[in-house]
Amino acid sequence: MSDLVTGIGLVAGALTSLAAVPQVVRTWRTGHARDISIWQPVLLTIGMVLWLVYGIVLNDLPLILANAFSIACYALLIVMKVRYGDDGRLPRRERSAG
Amino acid sequence: MSDLVTGIGLVAGALTSLAAVPQVVRTWRTGHARDISIWQPVLLTIGMVLWLVYGIVLNDLPLILANAFSIACYALLIVMKVRYGDDGRLPRRERSAG
Repeated sequence: MSDLVTGIGLVAGALTSLAAVPQVVRTWRTGHARDISIWQPVLLTIGMVLWLVYGIVLNDLPLILANAFSIACYALLIVMKVRYGDDGRLPRRERSAG
Repeated sequence: MSDLVTGIGLVAGALTSLAAVPQVVRTWRTGHARDISIWQPVLLTIGMVLWLVYGIVLNDLPLILANAFSIACYALLIVMKVRYGDDGRLPRRERSAG
């Protein structure tokens, strides 16, 4: 029973953690973060640091692993959002055309 | 001690849950979801349903409240992403200009 519950938590943690990956990849590929609210990754990062503390105090492995990974992903997303702004990543080669 | 830990969990849950709100609001206001990867809300929703089950089994209030609210927000985001597509919401009045 306890193993099953931990299993559910681990799968849940894996999914919610991995959820950040396609967003990070898409933002990196397109060079655009216009439609992303910066408050989402900012609030998620702060919240997940607290979840991490919560998980450490409760010694809850799914919470610890899930949040440590997500924090890294959302930190990357914040950096890209700030750097790309509303105009997107500066296209070095494409710019020569116009 | 137990109250403090539950408190940390509740604040963490509130922050990670509320994180979805500015994104939902921004997507609704701008009518654009181009830069959002649909896999993010999809994976988050599936994962959070499992977190909800995990929270219910463990009778963990922060996990239950946080995930129930987030699931609703990300479901809304999925609907908007699908409806807006890459072109954004059709601007009915603005379209008359050209």
